[in-house]
Order: sequence, then C-alpha cells, then structure tokens
Amino acid sequence: MHDAALVFDLDGTLVDTVYQHVMAWHEALNDCGIELSIWRIHRRIGMSGGLLVRALARELGYGLEQTTIERLQSEHGRIYRERNKTIVPLPGAKDLLELLTRENVQWAIATSSHRNTAQTALQALGLPAETVVITHDEVERAKPNPDLFLAAAQKLDVAMKDTFVVGDSVWDMLSAQRAGALGIGLLSGGYSLSELVDAGAYRVYEDPADLAANLHELGLRI
Amino acid sequence: MHDAALVFDLDGTLVDTVYQHVMAWHEALNDCGIELSIWRIHRRIGMSGGLLVRALARELGYGLEQTTIERLQSEHGRIYRERNKTIVPLPGAKDLLELLTRENVQWAIATSSHRNTAQTALQALGLPAETVVITHDEVERAKPNPDLFLAAAQKLDVAMKDTFVVGDSVWDMLSAQRAGALGIGLLSGGYSLSELVDAGAYRVYEDPADLAANLHELGLRI
Repeated sequence: MHDAALVFDLDGTLVDTVYQHVMAWHEALNDCGIELSIWRIHRRIGMSGGLLVRALARELGYGLEQTTIERLQSEHGRIYRERNKTIVPLPGAKDLLELLTRENVQWAIATSSHRNTAQTALQALGLPAETVVITHDEVERAKPNPDLFLAAAQKLDVAMKDTFVVGDSVWDMLSAQRAGALGIGLLSGGYSLSELVDAGAYRVYEDPADLAANLHELGLRI
Repeated sequence: MHDAALVFDLDGTLVDTVYQHVMAWHEALNDCGIELSIWRIHRRIGMSGGLLVRALARELGYGLEQTTIERLQSEHGRIYRERNKTIVPLPGAKDLLELLTRENVQWAIATSSHRNTAQTALQALGLPAETVVITHDEVERAKPNPDLFLAAAQKLDVAMKDTFVVGDSVWDMLSAQRAGALGIGLLSGGYSLSELVDAGAYRVYEDPADLAANLHELGLRI
C-alpha cells in the first residue's frame, strides 16, 4: 500500500449531479413558499442539508422553524430521487478509481448526503463491495465540518497529512483544510478555478479524467 | 435624457433562467445521443445557440452535421419552453428598470435567444410597450459577436462608449468589449466574480438589486 490516499466527494466530483441537486432544492424551496435565486443555491451545494437551508434562510434575512428546515430537507431528497432515476458518472471517474485500485493507492468516498439520497449515484459508479463510503448517516456533522473526511481517513488507516481530498466545491476545500488534508479541486461542479484556489485547493483539474491524466502532479509514487 | 445608457442581457441578468437553459440543453443533447458534462454546458450559456452547439461538439472532439445542430437548437427551445411556463425575474430587476425610466436613463434588452424562446421571460418583466428589445431575430450574429449590443445602442441613439452592458456571462463581457462598451457583470447567472473580471467587467454585482443599490458607482448623473 502507498503512504498516501485519496478521499473523494461524490456529487459533482465523481457523478454529474450538482445541477440536479440545485434544481431539486429550488423546487423544494418554492413548494415551501421560499423564493431564492438559483445561483445562490448552487453556491451552497456540498454542505450539509441542514446547514444549507439555514444559510439560505440567512441570505433571505429571516429565520426558519425547525419543522420547515426538516420539511425542506425531506422534500429536496424526495424530488431529487424522483427526478433522477438515471445518474451519469463524470468523464473518467470509473477509470480513475480503477487505476488507483490497480496501483494499490487507497481511496474512499465521503459525501454530505444521507445514504438513501446517495444510493443511486454510488450504484452508477459500480463500486467494489469493499469500498469505504462515509455519508451523513455515519457522522454527526457533514461538510464543511471535517468529520466526514476524518472518518474516511481513519477507516483507511491513513494520516490526514497523507490524504488528498478531491472535491468540486469550496465546502470540500474548507472541510479538507479543517481536517488537515490537501484539497484538490475539480471544475465539474460548476465552481470556477479561482473560487477553488481561494478556498485552498492545492491543484484544480477539470474533472476526474483530467485528474487521472495529471496524477503525477500529486507526487504519488505510482 | 442622460448621456449614458444601459443595455441588459436577459437570461441570468434580469430573469432567473440560466439553470433552466442549462438543463434544457443537457436534455436536448442527451436526446441526440450526446453525453456532455453539465458544467461545460453552463459555461457556454449566453452565446448564440448555433455557436454553443459547435463549441460543445469541439469539446467532445468531433464535428456535428448541420442537421444535428439545427435539431439540437430546436429541441432545446422546445424543452425549455415546455418545462418553464413560469419565469421569475431576478431580485430587483423590475425595480431597477423602473428606476432607470423614472430617472430618464435610457435602457434596452439584448439577448442571444430568438424571440419565441425569450417571450415568456420578457412578459415576466412586465416591460413598457416602448421597450427596445433586440433578439437573435434582429441581427445576423448573436453573442459573443457585438451585433446585438450595437443594434440596441443604435436604436437608443447612444454612442457605444456611453453604453454600459450589463450581463451575467463572460460572453456578455466579450461582446461588450468588441462593441466598445463598458461591461458590468452580475453573479446571478452562476459565473464567479473573477471569471467576469478576467473577461473585462468594469464592476461586478450580485444581481439587479445589488446593481440598483450601487448605481452611483457607474457615475450616472441621477
């Protein structure tokens, strides 16, 4: 085994699902009578659902009842699952994971989603049975808290300083920094290069295919 | 009348429709058997539909038949119109336009869309009958060519150097520069601040409401 490992975010990093999540949140908010510009929702994707709803409410300038917050989260999950029976891996995602396995580089997946929402995306990747997957069900606090990445690294038995966190959102980069890992940004979730660099990304690639082609830049001994 | 005028892009600048256009293109492409990551489509929104399709095909590494290009454009229009019967103005859009009218500052709208696709968005804004609206139907080449903005300024009878172009995409900024106008970026289409500044934006605001609150930064004598 190598002395370094990679922990991947899921939505926007391995599967092409960020925009579907954005639209599902938009619809859930509308259903609850909350009108919010779509770009503001986009910029919050990747953080814990509870935190996302609270952050959006703050942007609107008013607080939300706990029951509304819970209703929004379950509505988002329902709409997202209903609308997206088919989920497509991002270019190169499966090849990248297979390459890492073949080269004995450990890797895991860590997502802010709950397991029932992440299910279809995980299936779309055709993961080996032994894959380490940490969801919001396994930790108390999702991103941008460091819990998900810490749990993933612990399960892989690798030190945080030897862990690369690969993600598409600034929340992944913030989470990575708080966990003491190096952040690698991907543009495939719709954030720009400078937003990811400003949030601490050590390198930024277009998508998993681009990362696979430049894996040597991480200095992995493969 | 003031000696300066504002020409507004439509989608993502005055109405919250960029993400709906992204998803409609994604579906149209899928229907034609073309699989393309959604973020790449997002980054092309705002340019002419024909150019968008050609640019995406280039990213895929292959050419497209003229019939496929035309089919994609009409499919996109059909899906977009079908899915989006209701269109929401961005925060402050209507107030901003009314403020300009009240202050005798001339303004117009210039969009890469054809008139039948732009129709619902234009209606949602409740525009005065005399509003100058330039669509792809009025000019040969849409953005990032300067034709739309040139036609709008000509109709307002104002010089390009006295015209502020307000848009949410780098294509608006490119188009503005080619037309010899000053570009004002808005984040409401999902581009980041640095992308808009890098493309030549003189100032960047969150959305129409934020621009209205900071209109004095454009030095308009109102």
